Amino acid sequence: MSLGVLEIRKVVVKVTGKIFDNENGVDVLASLSSLISSKADEGYRFAVVVGGGRRARDYIELGRKLGLSEGQLDAVGIEVSRVNAILLAFTLGPRAYLPIPRSIDEFLRAWTSSKVVVLGGLQPGQSTNAVAAIVAEMINADLILNATDVDGIYDSNPKKNPQAKLLKEVHIKELEEMLSDKELAGYYELFDRVGLNIVKRSKIPLVFLSVYNTENIRRAINGEEFVGTRIVY
Amino acid sequence: MSLGVLEIRKVVVKVTGKIFDNENGVDVLASLSSLISSKADEGYRFAVVVGGGRRARDYIELGRKLGLSEGQLDAVGIEVSRVNAILLAFTLGPRAYLPIPRSIDEFLRAWTSSKVVVLGGLQPGQSTNAVAAIVAEMINADLILNATDVDGIYDSNPKKNPQAKLLKEVHIKELEEMLSDKELAGYYELFDRVGLNIVKRSKIPLVFLSVYNTENIRRAINGEEFVGTRIVY
Amino acid sequence: MSLGVLEIRKVVVKVTGKIFDNENGVDVLASLSSLISSKADEGYRFAVVVGGGRRARDYIELGRKLGLSEGQLDAVGIEVSRVNAILLAFTLGPRAYLPIPRSIDEFLRAWTSSKVVVLGGLQPGQSTNAVAAIVAEMINADLILNATDVDGIYDSNPKKNPQAKLLKEVHIKELEEMLSDKELAGYYELFDRVGLNIVKRSKIPLVFLSVYNTENIRRAINGEEFVGTRIVY
Amino acid sequence: MSLGVLEIRKVVVKVTGKIFDNENGVDVLASLSSLISSKADEGYRFAVVVGGGRRARDYIELGRKLGLSEGQLDAVGIEVSRVNAILLAFTLGPRAYLPIPRSIDEFLRAWTSSKVVVLGGLQPGQSTNAVAAIVAEMINADLILNATDVDGIYDSNPKKNPQAKLLKEVHIKELEEMLSDKELAGYYELFDRVGLNIVKRSKIPLVFLSVYNTENIRRAINGEEFVGTRIVY
Amino acid sequence: MSLGVLEIRKVVVKVTGKIFDNENGVDVLASLSSLISSKADEGYRFAVVVGGGRRARDYIELGRKLGLSEGQLDAVGIEVSRVNAILLAFTLGPRAYLPIPRSIDEFLRAWTSSKVVVLGGLQPGQSTNAVAAIVAEMINADLILNATDVDGIYDSNPKKNPQAKLLKEVHIKELEEMLSDKELAGYYELFDRVGLNIVKRSKIPLVFLSVYNTENIRRAINGEEFVGTRIVY
Amino acid sequence: MSLGVLEIRKVVVKVTGKIFDNENGVDVLASLSSLISSKADEGYRFAVVVGGGRRARDYIELGRKLGLSEGQLDAVGIEVSRVNAILLAFTLGPRAYLPIPRSIDEFLRAWTSSKVVVLGGLQPGQSTNAVAAIVAEMINADLILNATDVDGIYDSNPKKNPQAKLLKEVHIKELEEMLSDKELAGYYELFDRVGLNIVKRSKIPLVFLSVYNTENIRRAINGEEFVGTRIVY
Repeated sequence: MSLGVLEIRKVVVKVTGKIFDNENGVDVLASLSSLISSKADEGYRFAVVVGGGRRARDYIELGRKLGLSEGQLDAVGIEVSRVNAILLAFTLGPRAYLPIPRSIDEFLRAWTSSKVVVLGGLQPGQSTNAVAAIVAEMINADLILNATDVDGIYDSNPKKNPQAKLLKEVHIKELEEMLSDKELAGYYELFDRVGLNIVKRSKIPLVFLSVYNTENIRRAINGEEFVGTRIVY
Repeated sequence: MSLGVLEIRKVVVKVTGKIFDNENGVDVLASLSSLISSKADEGYRFAVVVGGGRRARDYIELGRKLGLSEGQLDAVGIEVSRVNAILLAFTLGPRAYLPIPRSIDEFLRAWTSSKVVVLGGLQPGQSTNAVAAIVAEMINADLILNATDVDGIYDSNPKKNPQAKLLKEVHIKELEEMLSDKELAGYYELFDRVGLNIVKRSKIPLVFLSVYNTENIRRAINGEEFVGTRIVY
Repeated sequence: MSLGVLEIRKVVVKVTGKIFDNENGVDVLASLSSLISSKADEGYRFAVVVGGGRRARDYIELGRKLGLSEGQLDAVGIEVSRVNAILLAFTLGPRAYLPIPRSIDEFLRAWTSSKVVVLGGLQPGQSTNAVAAIVAEMINADLILNATDVDGIYDSNPKKNPQAKLLKEVHIKELEEMLSDKELAGYYELFDRVGLNIVKRSKIPLVFLSVYNTENIRRAINGEEFVGTRIVY
Repeated sequence: MSLGVLEIRKVVVKVTGKIFDNENGVDVLASLSSLISSKADEGYRFAVVVGGGRRARDYIELGRKLGLSEGQLDAVGIEVSRVNAILLAFTLGPRAYLPIPRSIDEFLRAWTSSKVVVLGGLQPGQSTNAVAAIVAEMINADLILNATDVDGIYDSNPKKNPQAKLLKEVHIKELEEMLSDKELAGYYELFDRVGLNIVKRSKIPLVFLSVYNTENIRRAINGEEFVGTRIVY
Repeated sequence: MSLGVLEIRKVVVKVTGKIFDNENGVDVLASLSSLISSKADEGYRFAVVVGGGRRARDYIELGRKLGLSEGQLDAVGIEVSRVNAILLAFTLGPRAYLPIPRSIDEFLRAWTSSKVVVLGGLQPGQSTNAVAAIVAEMINADLILNATDVDGIYDSNPKKNPQAKLLKEVHIKELEEMLSDKELAGYYELFDRVGLNIVKRSKIPLVFLSVYNTENIRRAINGEEFVGTRIVY
Repeated sequence: MSLGVLEIRKVVVKVTGKIFDNENGVDVLASLSSLISSKADEGYRFAVVVGGGRRARDYIELGRKLGLSEGQLDAVGIEVSRVNAILLAFTLGPRAYLPIPRSIDEFLRAWTSSKVVVLGGLQPGQSTNAVAAIVAEMINADLILNATDVDGIYDSNPKKNPQAKLLKEVHIKELEEMLSDKELAGYYELFDRVGLNIVKRSKIPLVFLSVYNTENIRRAINGEEFVGTRIVY
């Protein structure tokens, strides 16, 4: 599958926090950093939104025991996603903007530099998927790449069902139904409702693919054939 | 109807932007400011979230003609809601925090003062109703008052149907269905999905009532009988 | 008339808020944005200061009824000029710096990017004309273009007197006298005293011309013949 | 002379930068700090604006030799006034707000604390006298005390003419004329035009008195008889 | 041992990051939060500096594999200490200042509120012990409590030598020597050189005690007998 | 002596505050500004850290008489170093970033511009030498040039002993001993312990040379023979 987008120049990459969870992530991070650097040198602009991963969940669990509200727990998770973000930003070296933006105002300021902007969460009550959609809309991004730990969206849970089939295209309405269907939504991380409303109203090209296959991500950015799921409007 | 909340101390008031639309709003603003001031002097803490109103829509229309993206139009509307916010803050005088918070970090800083915190929108992709829910959750608010231009939630559109009946209580699931039902959602401003998910997960006491009846708002804050709609969980 | 400035590279454009007043402004805004973009691409640097216009005056009137002080009314008007500024900045697209600077520190930071910096007012007690002069002095601008709704400075009020004659050159001392002469100053927007003192002490090339004739503005920037009034020192 | 202001609660004190010029200033600073502290403990609110003094002029001279623009020289002088401000703020101890506000937004935030707010300059193109007037208007101050190195405004230069007579009252229009009269304005520091326009439009009670007589300043704040010049409107 | 400090009002508590390492920390955090809250209600002011703990070390290890510089690794560790800080701040509830200060300027602003200020690290090249000393000096703190995972300073490593004897008093020069003696410094977390120079030059009362015995910490704050090591000058 | 560093691209220059002390400094400042500008135009990146000089010491003396704590005195000195920094930044013109960074976060943001970043101190308890080392480590600088008022490190005090011999190379351990040896450290400004620990752990190439010989500084940056002392690891 290729995207068929005429010219991709501004890319938002949503990176699952899972790659920060353990030492195996080092290679993925290095490889991803290397890809983004080389494409940035070719003139592409990147906003990279990173999730919180296991450490965010650990902290949230700790906070829950201390009696924090749901909003406060989200805020703690957001801080952890920012630690992940700073780690990736330092790995990108002089190509990355610093410090990590903590609000839309700061993101916009960061974006007016010529740097790769890495960020974590922004606000309680929304996931980092929503952040990816929000910043994509603000900068008129040509593409959102949602890089998760599976190859895209399947017709059933690929971790339980070895026969699960990767869907090449999913209509935004189908994605919307999947999000309403809790059982489905529960087993792998897709997109939240805030983000969905945004990509829907602005018809932002959106692709789900694996974070572990950097070469595949490169192909998607290049507008070449790649493995993954494309949302159609 | 009375709220039956044991002790109300921290109140989030969502004020419709309509009261800034024309000169009739002066009295409502003065009266609302007076109410908040007197309750603040009694020890209540207030976060007041104001909408953008007609001027926001005017600017958004202008921006749309200029080719702005949906996210950028939201950002413009948010700026207008902040003009409304500063106007209300100055009206509140030394009881109000300034400057108007532009992010969650800034809201939290404002809240650690002993002042009334007035704010407009925070982020594209969400309404000021969502902002009210987000800040309510962050500060463990005892109550969200959604002060609109009608007396609460009706069983049909009160502006079209004179027989429309004000509902004293609406279950959160019913509110959820109303939001999905576009025709309904279209005719009067209720609550957005982001906000709904937040009040739902944290079961924050939420009431819809009229912004024009300040005395009624006071009764709601006091835990006395008042006219309006209460969301039950 | 041509400016005769040796090399114009850094231009401050003061844009009247009137072009944001109604839908007619769309074309002016689009055309102005297009001009600035094309000149920026040629290597010119721009700081664009926008006024508040009718909406600022509407809000100020509302605020006055609510009992705000003159300084607070100025502050409200400044916020509206910033809404205008963000609208223009989004129209300029990736060439514009964001967020809109709210202080001299923030303006200086914005200016160190390579972007067009759009701003509204900065401080109560001074007009956006003063802001234009202040930022021009800070960046050693080669030229201030004051783009208003008339072709320049006339010997009498052109809106009342059809015989009013456009003055090609006005000495700074004459401008100073015009500002002291209330009747004159009352009928069309010129320059305030703060701004005047600054352009005077630094002898910054200053031109008054019409915001509606973008082609004429382009000629002024190019150092070509144009219609307008030039301040001489 | 006594002020006859009904109730003085919010006072802006403009302090000449001269008291930071040499070691003699230590006693004045300590005494002033002591006065402000004791009045603050009684419930008075203070904004204290300090000038740059000799060190500011030294730096400006250095900057001029390095080719800085007038606006940049002002900016350097403002930084020095902020060094003076931080020195006074530390002397005031826990009663003072920190850090020193660098913009109107930051001043407003500082003022919403219950602390004494000390600040230096804010913007090129205006003196710290203007700053005093601007902040006074923003907070609806009851009084501006302009504490200089002479007892008030004289009918001629008291440093040259031993017969010079202290004027108990000066009409705002007379002050305006004094500012236009360069010779007069040149020999002692009065008020700048920006500040004058502000106090004039808002009729803010304004008094000129000596910074060296703290007891006299206390009397002015108390609404008692004191030595100095009062501006009448 | 009792401190013999005349009046303790402003306390800096340095809390080891270890209590955030696992779920056992919940009780310690809750108990510590409870102690600080009750003393704050009695009028004590607190700045609480929290370390990064195991999670900081995990992230630093990850960063080292990604090729980050020592300064960047410190910066990553500081971010983790701020996650710990926000967790503690939310636990303290409305008594804590937010957001977590990220610089000395922000700390000073936080301190001018009446809230408990919780912070993590501030700058690469120094430990959170140094941060505790720096903020203590800035606010003229009466006491620094260094709450670690042992009861104080021993004459040998208590984790290796069951005969190790707790020292009631250690002279600052002895502490200095211990810091130079790497073997000693290696086995338990004491104080870094930046912090030591500060407490030494300002002779700030400094105590080492166990974070696990909240009742003992309370006694130290109250000026009563407690178990721990006191630094003498 | 030449540095033998393979490729110098990122240089941190620590400039003694002495060149701001009197009018003789004008030439040095102009010359230094000129050198940095020309090398920046060749693609070198510069962070320039300036000390406080005599004026900082004057203010500190004043503050000590007013009873400020050591940390507060440091803070006052830091503000003065920032006045020096802004003066140098304005002298560098459009090549310099503004405003002067006041924290590590702000430094990192400044560094992501393509500008020369000038800064003064950052935090009480450390010298501007430490600041130079901290920022060098954060940006992976290729070289720190410590430009003082002598030609480098001597075997005895060159201001007392005309026979004092300039050392071409000093081992980091020798520098460490010199810092411990108070008499030596007392007579000329070298490096503080915080800075030393940082350059030591990251083995950052460090050179001491005279600020008065700009041509010599240029040679050091070019990797050519120059007069000065090189620290070896």
